[in-house]
Amino acid sequence: MLNKENVRLGQVRSGIRELFEYGKKRKAEIGEENVFDFSIGNPSVPPPESVREALSDLVKNSDPVALHGYTSAQGDLSVRESVADDLNRRFGAGLNADFIYMTCGASASLTITLNALLNVGDEVIVFSPFFPEYKVFCEHAGGKLVVVPSDKNFQPDLKKFSSALNARTKAVIINSPNNPSGAVYGEQTIKSLVDIIARQKQPVYLISDEPYRELVYNGQKIPFVTNYYKRSIVCYSYSKSLSLPGERIGYVAVNPAMEEADEVYAGVCGAGRALGFVCAPSLLQQLVKRCANQTSDFSVYVKNRDLLMRKLGEYGFEFVPPDGAFYLFVKSPDGCGASFAERAKSFEILLVDGAGFGCKEYVRLSYCVSEEMLERSLPAFKALAESYV
Amino acid sequence: MLNKENVRLGQVRSGIRELFEYGKKRKAEIGEENVFDFSIGNPSVPPPESVREALSDLVKNSDPVALHGYTSAQGDLSVRESVADDLNRRFGAGLNADFIYMTCGASASLTITLNALLNVGDEVIVFSPFFPEYKVFCEHAGGKLVVVPSDKNFQPDLKKFSSALNARTKAVIINSPNNPSGAVYGEQTIKSLVDIIARQKQPVYLISDEPYRELVYNGQKIPFVTNYYKRSIVCYSYSKSLSLPGERIGYVAVNPAMEEADEVYAGVCGAGRALGFVCAPSLLQQLVKRCANQTSDFSVYVKNRDLLMRKLGEYGFEFVPPDGAFYLFVKSPDGCGASFAERAKSFEILLVDGAGFGCKEYVRLSYCVSEEMLERSLPAFKALAESYV
Repeated sequence: MLNKENVRLGQVRSGIRELFEYGKKRKAEIGEENVFDFSIGNPSVPPPESVREALSDLVKNSDPVALHGYTSAQGDLSVRESVADDLNRRFGAGLNADFIYMTCGASASLTITLNALLNVGDEVIVFSPFFPEYKVFCEHAGGKLVVVPSDKNFQPDLKKFSSALNARTKAVIINSPNNPSGAVYGEQTIKSLVDIIARQKQPVYLISDEPYRELVYNGQKIPFVTNYYKRSIVCYSYSKSLSLPGERIGYVAVNPAMEEADEVYAGVCGAGRALGFVCAPSLLQQLVKRCANQTSDFSVYVKNRDLLMRKLGEYGFEFVPPDGAFYLFVKSPDGCGASFAERAKSFEILLVDGAGFGCKEYVRLSYCVSEEMLERSLPAFKALAESYV
Repeated sequence: MLNKENVRLGQVRSGIRELFEYGKKRKAEIGEENVFDFSIGNPSVPPPESVREALSDLVKNSDPVALHGYTSAQGDLSVRESVADDLNRRFGAGLNADFIYMTCGASASLTITLNALLNVGDEVIVFSPFFPEYKVFCEHAGGKLVVVPSDKNFQPDLKKFSSALNARTKAVIINSPNNPSGAVYGEQTIKSLVDIIARQKQPVYLISDEPYRELVYNGQKIPFVTNYYKRSIVCYSYSKSLSLPGERIGYVAVNPAMEEADEVYAGVCGAGRALGFVCAPSLLQQLVKRCANQTSDFSVYVKNRDLLMRKLGEYGFEFVPPDGAFYLFVKSPDGCGASFAERAKSFEILLVDGAGFGCKEYVRLSYCVSEEMLERSLPAFKALAESYV
């Protein structure tokens, strides 16, 4: 009677959200300091001080009617210009404001893009492990998610990718740096990927979901997709770079170099309208205009990553060193992520089962946490490891 | 190849947005002071001073990691409690926080609610004139919008409403105070409506889209729908009451009194997820917690309404005095709203053609404008009237 699919989605929740809610409840029961919560990618470092300054200044010194008023549906023009300028300066991205659409964050960017592109039955390829909501977003837009495995280093398996492409393929989503594996795709990987995509007869779009773009370790350079493939669309959020996940601000950038850029951008505008977005939050848009080129101080993530790799390695856990994002994707000692995550709970450690990411042998550990919590959690990890001996 | 419907929506734009963009362009061409823009419902009065104070205080004195972090998908619990408390205090609404879902404004509230309720082919009844995006939202959710005419005072035609209900009817949307007519439905109207709805064998939901709830003239009391009908769902936005249209903050409130409230609320949560909303902007949620019971100073709207009714009446224009919202729905002298709006443009007056609202003999005039602009526009209205003589 009601919409069964949406009722089901509301009842089951995402595994991550479920664990997040469990964590909140558990902390209330036994004290915040006794729960080691590695469940959610909620940045643990504050935004740069310039964010506070810009917000204060905007609220104090702007005309409130203009500041809080509707913007154009695609976002304030000067904001879009600052986003394009920033990306062109840093990546030679070849973008322009007329093809940027401000959104309520990366999830909105993805649902809007998918609803712009897909017709019922179209296929969208992703590489496992992948952010589980891709499936939800894709199916709501009428598409079918096709999962292609990655290799043991969480890089795309190009041979399997080639075989997965077919006449129904409409888009490929990449997510580098990757949630949950932390893998980063280098330039050669992107080149190989787009070479394969370009062989298809029909247009296939490359959607780059890159909220972790600025979170890269070892100085690795991120290849910006518009420089490698015409039919590319960038979905971004300032959630991680500026530590503003709750504020919901990001964008879709359509590569102006593709022939049908006008039509794709119109589809983005139309999808935003049909989904009920109206415009991205206006105060946050103005904030982006002032802070687009900045990031939070990520040194805590670097420290956490190093400490975790060292200690978890010592305890005997297996993982691939992440090159970006703030996740460690850990192999379950018994080969089952679900039972591993469940057992971790009895040590008050919250880890997300990898099954939802398409890798049921793993769990995801978010290390965007305080150093202090991480240090306190180490004995629990040690005990967890020993429980498998 | 792309999603045709969304490309079309992006290309045609809503008539209101189209005119809004035309107005921006025209102001740049001939100077802001020479365009009389009555196109968009963008509040012209600032938020109450308490909004600025609350935002400043939140930004200055809160832990930024908590302030800007993800909230639960349905919204922060304490925020939802403050919304429920406010509505229960003012309306005896019988709501509770567990059935409130914070959204990115009223459009989001509607798309989420419709996606929670509808299956393909379900019908949703609205009364003309109606907010044109209802059709877009409803069709994206798989439904069919059925338009029932109102009487000459823009009150529901109950006889025609009775005939329109059938086994496929899933929901009825009411919008009181109404955009664009300014009509307000009294208690007896609501009672008659729900009596008719309740006669259906299948469950039919009453969706009350009420962003103008606090904008009522002549001291008329707004009947709160949960007090009259179990299967009611309130869609709200703080855009108008707190003058924050660009910030995108509102809620869906499911009446806990309906048997299947849990299921409907799950559908709301699931739809929010599938559409990519994640959570409502966290800073704005905290603002609502502090300011839910306040409003902007609406005295300018009262003055504008009175002046407009007096002057436009003098010039010979016809309209029904609006009891709420900030719109005047004016009959075209030649019976065609489109040609009236087009002719008004040549006097630099921007009015929205009523056809999109389902009333092609009318135009909508938004009087949420400065008193000064309104006064300056009067000679142009006079000349426009005289052009018809």
